[in-house]
Formats: sequence, structure tokens, C-alpha cells
Amino acid sequence: MSPSLPPCYNLAVKVSELGEFGLIDLLAKMISESGRATSPQLILGIGDDAAAWRSDAAIHLVTTDSLFEGIHFTLESTPWDALGWKSLAVNLSDIAAMGGTPKYALVSLALPEDAEVDDVRALYRGMIEIAGKFQVAIVGGDTCRAPLVSLTITVFGDADSAGKMLTRSGAKHGDKIAVTGSLGAAAGGLAMLAKKMKVNNEQDAAELSRAFLRPWPRVAEGKMLVETGVRAAIDVSDGLVADLTHICRASGVGARVEVERVSVSPALKVGFGSRALGLALSGGEDYELLFTASQDVMANVQKAAACPITVIGDITAENAGQVGLVDASGKPVHVSMAGWEHFKK
Amino acid sequence: MSPSLPPCYNLAVKVSELGEFGLIDLLAKMISESGRATSPQLILGIGDDAAAWRSDAAIHLVTTDSLFEGIHFTLESTPWDALGWKSLAVNLSDIAAMGGTPKYALVSLALPEDAEVDDVRALYRGMIEIAGKFQVAIVGGDTCRAPLVSLTITVFGDADSAGKMLTRSGAKHGDKIAVTGSLGAAAGGLAMLAKKMKVNNEQDAAELSRAFLRPWPRVAEGKMLVETGVRAAIDVSDGLVADLTHICRASGVGARVEVERVSVSPALKVGFGSRALGLALSGGEDYELLFTASQDVMANVQKAAACPITVIGDITAENAGQVGLVDASGKPVHVSMAGWEHFKK
Repeated sequence: MSPSLPPCYNLAVKVSELGEFGLIDLLAKMISESGRATSPQLILGIGDDAAAWRSDAAIHLVTTDSLFEGIHFTLESTPWDALGWKSLAVNLSDIAAMGGTPKYALVSLALPEDAEVDDVRALYRGMIEIAGKFQVAIVGGDTCRAPLVSLTITVFGDADSAGKMLTRSGAKHGDKIAVTGSLGAAAGGLAMLAKKMKVNNEQDAAELSRAFLRPWPRVAEGKMLVETGVRAAIDVSDGLVADLTHICRASGVGARVEVERVSVSPALKVGFGSRALGLALSGGEDYELLFTASQDVMANVQKAAACPITVIGDITAENAGQVGLVDASGKPVHVSMAGWEHFKK
Repeated sequence: MSPSLPPCYNLAVKVSELGEFGLIDLLAKMISESGRATSPQLILGIGDDAAAWRSDAAIHLVTTDSLFEGIHFTLESTPWDALGWKSLAVNLSDIAAMGGTPKYALVSLALPEDAEVDDVRALYRGMIEIAGKFQVAIVGGDTCRAPLVSLTITVFGDADSAGKMLTRSGAKHGDKIAVTGSLGAAAGGLAMLAKKMKVNNEQDAAELSRAFLRPWPRVAEGKMLVETGVRAAIDVSDGLVADLTHICRASGVGARVEVERVSVSPALKVGFGSRALGLALSGGEDYELLFTASQDVMANVQKAAACPITVIGDITAENAGQVGLVDASGKPVHVSMAGWEHFKK
């Protein structure tokens, strides 16, 4: 080793040098030292054939999401620590979209054998960081070799103690449609990080990047919604129009969205100008909550909310399963966009 | 299309033609028509942000396992329907190794876009078949595009109603070590299917192949063990010696296995001769239960068991974390074998 190089240069340890059990030991130690390996009602975490816990909840929630390198993310746009944060965040967001409280996570990680141990540590740092913010314990999983990096995370939660939930099928004719926070920043962040777009203002750039890399699941808001009487919600992962279509199909209703009322991310407007609205309607990965409720319940939500709540349209009896975009006068408008669907070419 | 070809020739539908949501609809319909989409306490299955169920169990169990094409299986050795059966079986086996009852499964499936819909249907047929045998409901998951086929299945179960469990850390000095059924058939089946070995007797060949492709998780036996007072167990997935080492490490004890007492699969002995013992000790994927218990409890297990139970050795206070192989006179022996570990070259 050249004496002019820093001492750790070229010493990057590959996961193949640790082996599967060495890697599991290292990750288990990281999780344990962070305090995320335990939880008051956990009986068995990492290290046995199954994890085990006690629960007093009446209703149990579970969700899973997979992220594959080259499909859902690239390591050029998404640093390892952000990958760790985001892969857990998207699952916490699904529990939030049910009005539940996330409690436990299982992490299945596949890695090429030449993956660097330091990168895997960064991945778990990001995951442990968000697990800490939401008091989620990491209780098990699976580690294996594969030609590409992939993560499948499963999260368990408790439903609201009164047994109420937010579901896709709960929307009713006459409901108002609303969304938490603002939309499109994640899609803007991706465009920026993939270097398809430059954003000059540093603060806006940081905000778009954070929206894409470190989305904040609306767990507190989901619980507030269910307690306030909301019964229909979804998290915005595929894009506003695509996700609202999921609600319409599951509920057997139609939706009319007044595009000028959609809360477009301010940073996105500055950086992307005329493209911003299309990204807000279709970009996806914002992990805001999209929900519907009667006018009365909506008024109570507005009072109870700690984040902006924007009413963007109405649920209709006609055009079941479809989302119509209209202007302020109710006239149909067309906005250029494309939702995200796997497999379709 | 040439008129001489059968009508469906060349009409193989690719998943890219269905799209993600089309594929999800098709699979959801298959599961629903099979009766596996529901369960008495299930509230929400496939189709919302999370699955939801009620449960009266005091202790909840959860386990997950991933199978990647080219790493855990090849489509040459493992037909699609067997892949579906096996990917769920390995998870049911983990719940069995805790003495629990499996209840719900989440299936995350990644497929290349040119995968054929008929193959995916065969995969689900196999999975639905074993789910039916064990009354497990398939309540959700994730479907996405990837360069290779992979499956990550998560299974939830209830622990024994008295709150007792089988764990890796429950072995005690003085315990006898025993195993259900016989070992090595799965490894023999793999060698045969990968065409590294020919087995002439048709019946033996079918048995070895079945052991590898359609393992039967010992759920009933796991429940019997925990009810009979056993507290330490693991399922044989990595291989007898490797899995016994997991118990020894977790329990802080040693193990002495009398190799001549190990229950080698009769079909394996016929087909593989002198190689059979090595495969039985290290082959893995047998999904038998390996457990330890006091002499008294072991006698009760022998009485209660509906399958063969073979005592193969003793748990020792010395040599903690290690498994020693001995002959009938207690003299150390060496058997050529290699356990299975990811990443290590």
C-alpha cells in the first residue's frame, strides 16, 4: 500500500469476506446497539426461526414492498443510507394509509457478493434512523446473495384501538377529496438526481432531493384521520391520479379533481415551471395521504391537522372507477403525464 | 400462424402484455377462486395498502424467506408449480420449528417482463395447493419487474395457546438430540434433478424428487413437540450439522452426534451408496425438525409422534457452539461434507 494513501484506502471489505453469518452478526449488532432490536412486547427478535411478540391490538396490519436495483432505484441517484431510509419509509407509509401504528419490520436483503460492507452499514444506518423516528423494531429477515441489490421489507402494525381503519373502498358519493402536504417534489427530486434537470436554487434543490430520498411517512396524520372519522385513504406512491383511481375502483365511485387546487410543491414550481403540475398529478413517491370524507368530517380534519390539508375535488356517483380532471369552471382539462405501472412497456 | 400448429402454439402470453395491475387481478382471482383469499378472522386481504386481521393469539410469530433464480433454484431443476409449493413450504417450516400454527402469507414476486403468464399461474397453483393443505390464507404482497425471478414470502402464525415455543436457545446439557423423519432425500433429489446423478429405481427417484421439490413442513409435529414439553428446535434447512450448530451457539452448549444413528433416507441409501451419509448430515432442505429434550420428555415424544423420531446424540456442556461427530464407541469420526452459507466463496 502506498504510504501517501489514507490508511483505509483499498481496504474496502466485501460481504463475501464476511460470509452470510458474519454479515448477519454485524447487522444484528448494529441494530442491537441502536436500540432498534427491542420493543416492550417483543419476545424474540433476530436470530431464531421466527420473530415472536405479544400484542393487545384487536386488529393487526401487515404490508410489504420490494425495491430492486435498476427497477425501483439506482445507486447513482440513491445513496445507500437513503435507500435504507426509503425502503422502510414506503412500508411505514402503507401502515399510515390504514390509520395504523407501525411496530415491527422484517428486512430481506439480497446483495451481490462484491458489495462493500461499509455500504451495507450505510444502508442499515438509514433504516435504523427512520426506525428510531417511528419507534419501529427490526426483528428479523433474510440475507442472501443475488446478482443485484434488492430489499423486501415487511412491516406489521396495530390498527386504531377502536378498530377503525382507512381503506381504499371507503369513499362515498358526495365526499370531498383531499391530500396532506404538497405533491410532485419527489418526482422533481428524481429528475434532478438523475441529472435530467438542473435546479439552481440550493434550498429548493435540497428540498426536492430530500422528498425523493427521505420521504416522511404520514403516520401521525393517518392516525389523526382515522380518529377524526375519515374512512377512505391511500398513500400517494404511484401518483395522485393513479392512486385516486385505485380508490375509485375499490369504492365503486368516480372522482373529479380540480387541477388548479392541487397543492404543487413550491420548490417544484420554482425549479420545473410548466412541468410542475404534471409531476404533481402523476409523479408518485410523495407518500402523502390522499383521502376522502364528508364535508363535516373534512372541516374537523382541517382543524385537527398539523400539516396543510388541501381539498382538491369531489367523489361522484357517475364515472365509477375513473378520475376526471377539470378546471375551476368544471370543464375537462388535459394534463400531460404518465402513471407508473410495472411490466407494461 | 401455420395451420398445422396446435391452436395455442405461439400464443404464450407474457406478463408485460397484462401489465402489473392485470397480473395482480389475475392472481387475486386465482387465489380467491381457490378459497385461499379468506380466513375466519381476516378483515382485509389482497387489494388495500395493508392486510388486516383479528387475532386472539397471545403470541404472534412471523418469518420470511427469499428465493432467487440462479441462487436458490433454477427453473431447469424446479418446475414453476414446485417453486410455488416450496417457497411457501420453507416458511411454514419455520413456523413449525417454533411450534406454531401458520395462518397468513404475503407473497412478493419479481418477474422478468417476458415471463409467461401460464408459468406464473403454475407457480400460484403450487402455492395455493400447499396453502390449502395447511389452511393458510394468501392476503397480500407485491408484484414487480426484475431481471430474474425471485420470491420473498412472509408467513404469520400463532404460537401455541399456552404461550410456549420451540427456540434455538432452549437446548440444555443432558438433553437428547432427535430428528423427525429421515434426512438427505432433498439433497439427493437436487443432485438427481441437476443431472449430476442418476437413480435407476423409479420409485426411489420419485421420492427423492418429491423431497426436494415438494417438502412437507412438519407443522403438526412442531405443535406436538411443544405440547409434549420440548423447548428447543430448528428446521433442517442448511443441513443437520449446520442447523445443530445454530442451536448449540444460541443455547451455549455443545452437541455429540452418533453418525450411525442418523436416519438416512432409505431411497437416498439405495441411490447414492457411500455418499448418502454425507448428504444426510450436510445436504439441507429436508425441512425435518431437529430438536432436543430431556430423556423423559423424549420418551413422551416417541409415544405421541405419528412420524419416526430418531434420537441421534446428546447435548453436552463442553465444546459450546460445536457439533462433534462420533461413532458408536464415542470416537470422533470425519464425514466429508459442506454446509450451505451465502456469500462465502
